[in-house]
Amino acid sequence: MPYKLYYWDGIPGRGEFVRLALEEAGADYLDIARQPGGTNEMLKLMKMPGEAAAPFAPPFLIDGDLVISHVANILFYLGPRLGLVAEDEGLRTITNGLQLTITDFVAEIHDTHHPVALSLYYEDQKPEALRRSADFLSERLPKFLGYFERVLTQNPRGPEHMVGDRLSYVDLSLFQVIEGLRYAFPKAMDAYETNIPGLVALHDAVRARPRILSYLASERRLAFNESCVFRHYPELDRQS
Amino acid sequence: MPYKLYYWDGIPGRGEFVRLALEEAGADYLDIARQPGGTNEMLKLMKMPGEAAAPFAPPFLIDGDLVISHVANILFYLGPRLGLVAEDEGLRTITNGLQLTITDFVAEIHDTHHPVALSLYYEDQKPEALRRSADFLSERLPKFLGYFERVLTQNPRGPEHMVGDRLSYVDLSLFQVIEGLRYAFPKAMDAYETNIPGLVALHDAVRARPRILSYLASERRLAFNESCVFRHYPELDRQS
Repeated sequence: MPYKLYYWDGIPGRGEFVRLALEEAGADYLDIARQPGGTNEMLKLMKMPGEAAAPFAPPFLIDGDLVISHVANILFYLGPRLGLVAEDEGLRTITNGLQLTITDFVAEIHDTHHPVALSLYYEDQKPEALRRSADFLSERLPKFLGYFERVLTQNPRGPEHMVGDRLSYVDLSLFQVIEGLRYAFPKAMDAYETNIPGLVALHDAVRARPRILSYLASERRLAFNESCVFRHYPELDRQS
Repeated sequence: MPYKLYYWDGIPGRGEFVRLALEEAGADYLDIARQPGGTNEMLKLMKMPGEAAAPFAPPFLIDGDLVISHVANILFYLGPRLGLVAEDEGLRTITNGLQLTITDFVAEIHDTHHPVALSLYYEDQKPEALRRSADFLSERLPKFLGYFERVLTQNPRGPEHMVGDRLSYVDLSLFQVIEGLRYAFPKAMDAYETNIPGLVALHDAVRARPRILSYLASERRLAFNESCVFRHYPELDRQS
């Protein structure tokens, strides 16, 4: 039975971290909300009664009877099934910790354009967004990317992967974070990337993997846009 | 060997979700940063080389050689060891999904007083905090608490627990969230709590557990204060 992925249609968003894992593994999956009637099916599942598993928000994944919510939880579940994480419990735990740091980073990236309220448009919180983005670019982006660069280059098994000597879903997620940041903040990233040569090499290696390359060229890959977590508003980017 | 918990001294903060699980289970643990020299030891570990496990931020837990970062990851690891989660993989996955929704909620609670920048004082982002808190109280708090109330009352095994028919770390974490919200937003919670009778009953049941009761009365339990995730600034609370 194929995995069923539920996520908002039209944006890569948080669903993309799951898609990249499924695509890299060549897994059989359905992207439900991109099919006719799929969004309604998704919204209905979110209201389902009698289930501790009713998700708070997309993305969620259904495998058989099991409903799995939150990106990090989905990837933790899929990791061993798709061969995208070590089998050892300790390394799986470490991988999950890194993915949760990515989760926090993505939430902060989102809040650069929505610092006040999800329920308001960007245009209704622009002064706050300008202030938050300036802090994000000067403090938070270097802190997070510097941390991931350090973890990568300190890997005793070599800087080709974040954990151990094999590709994991964390490598795929960092590829996507760099893609998204380049889209959202091209000037800031252009200026900062000399500080993270290891991550840039990791990004390029992921991009060159045959299944990823073919996925990126397919219509299954959605383009970034201004409804996504990663949005390009030139006024929020570095100004010089 | 006792578990070693690393978290900032002087605040309950995110470390408290781990402490409650350790305390409820009567586990042998050391709260390192509350011991002489402990904070230095914690900061040194965060800079450790050669380890994918180097944590981005506290809290983290050390069990033998394994360094485990992020609250949800620590609780996922401890759950089966402390008897605070079902043994079945599906239910563990569902429990982890709920804990990750709590993680997101706690991040939003934090951002009510820090909507612009972690690196600035509250006083330097007060207009933004007023705006964000108003949205939080009218939109986000009812959305999150309403969701948890729905999951609880829909539990086919009864509304005594969030998942299945036994206490899990998610129940303990929701106790702490309600404690924190009552501290931070007493007027708003006073007005809202009639909508979440199930969660209030769950909170009271957790509070009455012998080990929790004894922990709360001990000096190991830290009081909420204005350096914590949960802060009481009367101007951010409901005004009438």
